[in-house]
Amino acid sequence: MKKLADIQHNFVDWYQDVIFEAELVDSSPTKGCYVLRPYGFALWENIQKILDKEIKKTGTQNAYFPLLIPESFITKEKKHVEGFSPELAVVTHAGGEKLEEAYVVRPTSETIIYHMFARWIKSWRDLPLKINQWANVVRWEMRHRAFLRSVEFLWQEGHTAHATHGEAVEMAQQALAIYKKLLEHYYAIPVISGMKTESEKFAGAERTYTLESLMPDGKALQMCTSHVLGHSFPESFDVRFQDDKGTMQVPHCTSWGLTTRTIGALVMMHGDQQGLIIPPRLAPIQAVIIPIYKTAAEKTAIIQKANEVAQHLQNANIAVHVDLNENDSPGAKFYAWELKGVPVRIELGPKDLEKNHVVMVNRAEADKTKKKQFVPCDNLITTIQALFDTIHEQLYQKALQRIQQQWHQADALSDFAHALENENGLYQTGWCGDAACEAQLKEHKGTIRCRYHENAHITCFYCKKPSVTDVLIAKSY
Amino acid sequence: MKKLADIQHNFVDWYQDVIFEAELVDSSPTKGCYVLRPYGFALWENIQKILDKEIKKTGTQNAYFPLLIPESFITKEKKHVEGFSPELAVVTHAGGEKLEEAYVVRPTSETIIYHMFARWIKSWRDLPLKINQWANVVRWEMRHRAFLRSVEFLWQEGHTAHATHGEAVEMAQQALAIYKKLLEHYYAIPVISGMKTESEKFAGAERTYTLESLMPDGKALQMCTSHVLGHSFPESFDVRFQDDKGTMQVPHCTSWGLTTRTIGALVMMHGDQQGLIIPPRLAPIQAVIIPIYKTAAEKTAIIQKANEVAQHLQNANIAVHVDLNENDSPGAKFYAWELKGVPVRIELGPKDLEKNHVVMVNRAEADKTKKKQFVPCDNLITTIQALFDTIHEQLYQKALQRIQQQWHQADALSDFAHALENENGLYQTGWCGDAACEAQLKEHKGTIRCRYHENAHITCFYCKKPSVTDVLIAKSY
Repeated sequence: MKKLADIQHNFVDWYQDVIFEAELVDSSPTKGCYVLRPYGFALWENIQKILDKEIKKTGTQNAYFPLLIPESFITKEKKHVEGFSPELAVVTHAGGEKLEEAYVVRPTSETIIYHMFARWIKSWRDLPLKINQWANVVRWEMRHRAFLRSVEFLWQEGHTAHATHGEAVEMAQQALAIYKKLLEHYYAIPVISGMKTESEKFAGAERTYTLESLMPDGKALQMCTSHVLGHSFPESFDVRFQDDKGTMQVPHCTSWGLTTRTIGALVMMHGDQQGLIIPPRLAPIQAVIIPIYKTAAEKTAIIQKANEVAQHLQNANIAVHVDLNENDSPGAKFYAWELKGVPVRIELGPKDLEKNHVVMVNRAEADKTKKKQFVPCDNLITTIQALFDTIHEQLYQKALQRIQQQWHQADALSDFAHALENENGLYQTGWCGDAACEAQLKEHKGTIRCRYHENAHITCFYCKKPSVTDVLIAKSY
Repeated sequence: MKKLADIQHNFVDWYQDVIFEAELVDSSPTKGCYVLRPYGFALWENIQKILDKEIKKTGTQNAYFPLLIPESFITKEKKHVEGFSPELAVVTHAGGEKLEEAYVVRPTSETIIYHMFARWIKSWRDLPLKINQWANVVRWEMRHRAFLRSVEFLWQEGHTAHATHGEAVEMAQQALAIYKKLLEHYYAIPVISGMKTESEKFAGAERTYTLESLMPDGKALQMCTSHVLGHSFPESFDVRFQDDKGTMQVPHCTSWGLTTRTIGALVMMHGDQQGLIIPPRLAPIQAVIIPIYKTAAEKTAIIQKANEVAQHLQNANIAVHVDLNENDSPGAKFYAWELKGVPVRIELGPKDLEKNHVVMVNRAEADKTKKKQFVPCDNLITTIQALFDTIHEQLYQKALQRIQQQWHQADALSDFAHALENENGLYQTGWCGDAACEAQLKEHKGTIRCRYHENAHITCFYCKKPSVTDVLIAKSY
């Protein structure tokens, strides 16, 4: 196996090394596309299971819309086409012939979904209409990094229509709240919630809510977004309903999505020099059992016990794997499963068998004196479940502390421009709301990640006029 | 709501009417593509859940491969390109530019998956490698019918590599056995298992196993297939492994898939003049509760009881819906839920409340004297679970009997050609194995659906030479 690049001094290469070596992904012959290998895809399946359940609790139903969208649809919403047309992949030929009208491979599905909404929504009785789709989308990006930025990626996209603006705002916020809980409670990633500025919002949206986080290298990553679309798309696609007084109205719409990109965030946020650390509540393998033996007699007894322990854990819905590979030493196995980020390792040798206990090892604990514990076999389930919670909390707190350390209060661009450019980090400051001031950040490679709910700063970071809102500024992925 | 076309005299229009009226699908602005509406997609989700579990039990792991495949890949396996090139959708432009090499939207993923297998398989220790993908695929067909034949459809595709031919055959048969159980035990569709002829097998396969069924109109429908690919694809994509003696070998591969097409079969197989009948083990809504009341006092009491009953059923994992819609009469609700094929209707009125029972109605039972039963509220779970099994068995047996009635033994094409052309049906006969005899069926619009395991016929249906195998002949979807 390849040695991982140094995480402190070469974070970019470390990321690349770890996702390939841990077999989350592989490169593919399709430009900018990656194969999600079984271990990486299993992680996405776990995320899907949790998120799908939460989405359904809101009364949202899954459906499936065509991959190929008539090219003319994309141009119907003016801002949408400006935002997406440089990134479109276009099917011009099919069935051996040139098509009369080309199709684009969906970069997102607002256009085709609102076309359908126009057929399905007639009366206020048809509202709210809440639809979600799990799908692949294609955006022809030029720079690629697996999970973080790829031509094809997987996501869910929620699309809803409501009778009132207030209900739409509430839905967009509810989606964001679901994402926040998912990211904090399962990914162990602390997130900051805020609103995008006019220049950073989704092409066609009235308002874009975002969850941002700060990676260990001090660059921000947009985790997911939720948009109040208002009337833009419904008007472009002639979606109308008759209200309870018989008047024709335009519904208020939302869309919201979370992608495989969040797996990239998880890798960066928790990994270390030994490899991945996967938070226990999402881990495809939560515990790996390594049998340790020398003689044939020991081997029989140890493997039997290992399988018993595994069965016991499986019965409590713990995802466990017994590593029975005979070609590798226990040491090599430790190394391989650390690389893959399995949160708990269980060692079982002849002495452990004698004492009817196992050794439980916490992947996330760096302190060697705290890393291991002996656990009586009668106590496995409660101990490992507590350990999962401990590991989750350790990962979350470590990430939170790091973000807090890199979160700076600043008054004037001149004060933080140098640091932003050279040391990254998150800068909270005041803003007058003017796009011209925002544009000044470009030459320092920063952007406003979001408007932040505090008003701790009185003047704009650039023009010094009164601030209308605090903003968070950072370089970003 | 639209009246459904007559199922006896106009089966084609009835099918079209029922899938649209029951809101399984809608047409879309993309040629030959359909929207899977929430009710139709929920059915697919139920199928996925069951099948995914069974696939994983075989040690197969899910993964995800790129949607877009370099055009040159498709041409690497000679028979494969002949089979698929007329149906390809091609991305020629992306990111605002003409691409140097075009990409095809995957019609199936053998080519890109074997390219990856060549990187992942080095030694006999890497085998067997068993991968499955849930995905959308695109085939530019010219005639379209929702579920049965559409440009884009959803499926799973399993792809495996093995050290020996025997293991590959076993895997392909295991996949077929999983499909057979799924179709018979969940869809309530009797299937016939057999092998495709040379001219009907998958483009690039050594051998194609198939499950066929016969629809009520006497036309056969291919439910799913499982292929022993042998060395064809692995050789074209340079997949090699070192065996345990150090010799380089080519692995033996399989692929197998089941698509949303099977939903079309389910609709045709079980539906009646009132609409869909969804087999209970797959139904998104297994039971619908209709509260019946006149006065406000009745309403309060009945709705409270209806919700109690619903909660009780939900606790036993039964998918139940209470229809609280105030705009429709109970009669209109009966009609609407019959159209949607919900297998059990529960009626709850003031007299039922008084007697602490409900009325349970079996959607699949035509005999009015047997259709309804009074069920004491203490007995709901056991009764409804038994009723689900009864309905499943009724649907299966009814389908089986119909298939048996349409299954004819025949010796010579001249004897059954007229019936095949005019009355459809399944014809079991002998075959010499010669493609020239098989080709004679074309002018009668029939094909050999599969080689059948019996040898009940001595001579070929056309040339009268000795038969090498019985075959089943029918028109097909």
